[in-house]
Amino acid sequence: MDRRSNRGGRAARLAARASSTGNEAIRAGLAGGRYKPLTDADMARIHDAALTILARTGLSDHTQELCDLVLPKGAELNEFGRLCFPRALMEDLLSGTASEYYVHARGDRAGRDDMHCTAQNVYFVNSGTAVTTYEAESQSYRPSTLRDIYDFTRLVDRLDNIHMLGDTVLATDVTDDYRHDMNMVYALLAGSQKPACLTFRHRSHIPHAIRMFDLASGGEGSFMKAPSVVFGGCPVVSPLRFGRENLELMIDTAKLGLVIDLAVPPQAGATAPATLAGTLAQAVAETLACVAISNLITPGVPVTFAAWPFITDLRTGSFTGGSGEQALIGAASIQMGKFYNLPTSVGCGMTDAKLPDAQYGLEKALTIALAAHAGGNRLCEVGGMLGSLMGCSFESMVIDDEACGMVARTLRGIEVSDETLAVDVIHESATGPGHFLGNAHTLDHMNTEFVYPDLMDRERTDTWEREGKTDLMARAREKSQAILGAHFPNYFGAADAQVRADFPILLDADAMKRPAGA
Amino acid sequence: MDRRSNRGGRAARLAARASSTGNEAIRAGLAGGRYKPLTDADMARIHDAALTILARTGLSDHTQELCDLVLPKGAELNEFGRLCFPRALMEDLLSGTASEYYVHARGDRAGRDDMHCTAQNVYFVNSGTAVTTYEAESQSYRPSTLRDIYDFTRLVDRLDNIHMLGDTVLATDVTDDYRHDMNMVYALLAGSQKPACLTFRHRSHIPHAIRMFDLASGGEGSFMKAPSVVFGGCPVVSPLRFGRENLELMIDTAKLGLVIDLAVPPQAGATAPATLAGTLAQAVAETLACVAISNLITPGVPVTFAAWPFITDLRTGSFTGGSGEQALIGAASIQMGKFYNLPTSVGCGMTDAKLPDAQYGLEKALTIALAAHAGGNRLCEVGGMLGSLMGCSFESMVIDDEACGMVARTLRGIEVSDETLAVDVIHESATGPGHFLGNAHTLDHMNTEFVYPDLMDRERTDTWEREGKTDLMARAREKSQAILGAHFPNYFGAADAQVRADFPILLDADAMKRPAGA
Repeated sequence: MDRRSNRGGRAARLAARASSTGNEAIRAGLAGGRYKPLTDADMARIHDAALTILARTGLSDHTQELCDLVLPKGAELNEFGRLCFPRALMEDLLSGTASEYYVHARGDRAGRDDMHCTAQNVYFVNSGTAVTTYEAESQSYRPSTLRDIYDFTRLVDRLDNIHMLGDTVLATDVTDDYRHDMNMVYALLAGSQKPACLTFRHRSHIPHAIRMFDLASGGEGSFMKAPSVVFGGCPVVSPLRFGRENLELMIDTAKLGLVIDLAVPPQAGATAPATLAGTLAQAVAETLACVAISNLITPGVPVTFAAWPFITDLRTGSFTGGSGEQALIGAASIQMGKFYNLPTSVGCGMTDAKLPDAQYGLEKALTIALAAHAGGNRLCEVGGMLGSLMGCSFESMVIDDEACGMVARTLRGIEVSDETLAVDVIHESATGPGHFLGNAHTLDHMNTEFVYPDLMDRERTDTWEREGKTDLMARAREKSQAILGAHFPNYFGAADAQVRADFPILLDADAMKRPAGA
Repeated sequence: MDRRSNRGGRAARLAARASSTGNEAIRAGLAGGRYKPLTDADMARIHDAALTILARTGLSDHTQELCDLVLPKGAELNEFGRLCFPRALMEDLLSGTASEYYVHARGDRAGRDDMHCTAQNVYFVNSGTAVTTYEAESQSYRPSTLRDIYDFTRLVDRLDNIHMLGDTVLATDVTDDYRHDMNMVYALLAGSQKPACLTFRHRSHIPHAIRMFDLASGGEGSFMKAPSVVFGGCPVVSPLRFGRENLELMIDTAKLGLVIDLAVPPQAGATAPATLAGTLAQAVAETLACVAISNLITPGVPVTFAAWPFITDLRTGSFTGGSGEQALIGAASIQMGKFYNLPTSVGCGMTDAKLPDAQYGLEKALTIALAAHAGGNRLCEVGGMLGSLMGCSFESMVIDDEACGMVARTLRGIEVSDETLAVDVIHESATGPGHFLGNAHTLDHMNTEFVYPDLMDRERTDTWEREGKTDLMARAREKSQAILGAHFPNYFGAADAQVRADFPILLDADAMKRPAGA
């Protein structure tokens, strides 16, 4: 066949394409759920194992504060002094959990870009707290900075397929915990009005951050009316221990009635069994412990089912984020979250590649696609992350945006109707011109049926050779630099002066209007 | 958390790993089918549309020979003189089709590496008939040669996750059709004893090829006893026209009672409607026409349901192989094949990238993963293909082998049992050492639970920087060159002299023992 056929209607198609208002083929929150790695019987057994672990083994390193909150309500200490959750208590709690939450966008994005985390709505989310930033010019990693957080955020502000901001990198240049957290929040909220997720280093930072959220949202009390940020951390250190700081964050968040965000990452073979089923059972147990505690504090408070099982390369004992095993167990953990009808998140797109090469693409697409089709509400770590979560890259961020768009198109699925089946159109084309390139049906559907990539090369081979043999990395660099050289938002607007009066803001207001280092 | 934790048991794990006999975590023919892009109602409507197209619109460019074979058995000519298949005839035929076939391996591989194409068994298959070969050194494409076919084949002979050989490239240096086809067959069968699929340029080549298949399989009549090659082509030129040469191939293959292999690639928006549902309906109709003809000639003859809908970038009218739309419609077409309980194949891994970069990885993984999880029996075009099927690359072949291994691991799924749930192991580790790195359960399962990559980098970032900052392409080049520099099989063995006596073999026997050009 002639695969490069181009007969007829080209001018009409280009005109139709030019008339498009943007990417009409996809949107945020498309539904997944058509991929089910676990059978119903598998899920029932994993659930049963998790309840056994919670009732018998329980968790260590609880605090007195936690005991005071949950022991009177049915949790128990076992013979090892570990905090256990009896089966009947768990079954009771699980019947009353929240199945949804919203995270709101701010400003012009309010309403339009809100996230509704429920059922199998899929959103692509930045997060990762990497400690280095990849520098394309030198092909090396340098410690990440506060400025990077602002730069990553304003870049993402221009990328349609990354729906939620996150603290992709740490500000390693800000060592004081309070200053770090307040400046991280500032950099995120100044750089974009998309919904955000992040973590704090100490519970005492929460009220200060809420004060800043208010200033970003229109004044005192505005944040609680339409929360635009969810926060949390890793309250559990696998296997089955509490981590004090993040546990305290969770307790305070639950008391406020805000969304409890989590990440529970037991690592198969290292901090969980080498078998994927065992790691999943442990991850479910550890996550359900957080669900239980939150709901014992504030019944019905929304909690993210954030079982994020990770994989270990057992040759070295190191975390590996890009494997088939990771893709599989991530999808399975989402399915377990849906088993409980809880809003879900999972880590995916966590490649081990150190730069955006073929490995990067293979590992990103495999892990993101399976998590998306499993129907995870928030697919975290997708944007820009590489090097087994050790680094983040501007070039990778724009690549991942386009990759998420491709995955989103597969989520949307195939609409089957008389109009789309087009039996008459087929009849007319087959008995008539023998092609569809210029007909009205093609022009009517070409903008809504297809995602047109910006970075993915579709040129002829000879054109590609003539035009410099670029790889995706080179094209991504051009795109990211163009955005970073032109888009310098500060969405605090008139409230910026107040923020700077109230908080030790380190980003210079003038420097924020120029590229980093300029 | 400490993501790079490495406490305990490393020596024991390395010893366990060294004792492994190979890749114990995956095998050929793992079952897909857990991803279902279409609902049952969607499938019923697409089926109905396809039967309407076959009954009303039919196909043009039929031959007298074809009419003589099928008109007496219920096919009809409509008012346009097109060959139509009435609904009742189709329903009758579809109730008697073969649901399976085997393709056998030869020599030492016989039995062990046979393919059983049925249900949702997944095999990764080479094919593509690209016209150029990518040269990594010059980063450019050159016309592919007969020697390339032998080189790609002997490379694949050493790659465990590519289960079936195919004519990945054309021998552009052999212009005579008979000489081309016989030498292509020779290069494939000399280079590996894996099952193979290929196409011929003319029906008259079939008996000659079978003579060569016999010589490769142990003598006269041996091929028909355990067919190790399936062949076919594109009998339909979309929309709804017959292509004479490939139609004739199909007729003769059906008469021999051999597996009918196909590829039916209507291109959405160009040679099929722009709507994915419409393209799918047309692809199903065109494929079922081939199923019907084959079964009218030889009832129950095995036919591959090879609806391979392709995507067009409607900005240019060009074929594009790597999009989300391609991944989605490929998976949906497999689901339609399973609707009919037919053995399936689909094209996937057809990236538009011109070299193995991040785009390559993203497009490969997305299209291969969804096709695999849809349960396609033969995932064709996966190995080494790039540049929208215009080229094939040795480096890409070894990358794709490893990518297929990753996808295969996701297909295998998660085994849930008391042993794998490991509730007691979790209890002992949580109340004991606090990790699982050295325990017996980890050592017992580490070889069967995980695929250990060869090319995918999992080093620490600083190690990667120190060791030369290689990308996957560089590592793939090293691996492919190592195999190509050492493995020079000729599986015709003692029969080679007879083959050379009977056929115009162009590959020099001595040159076949050296690297190309050496």
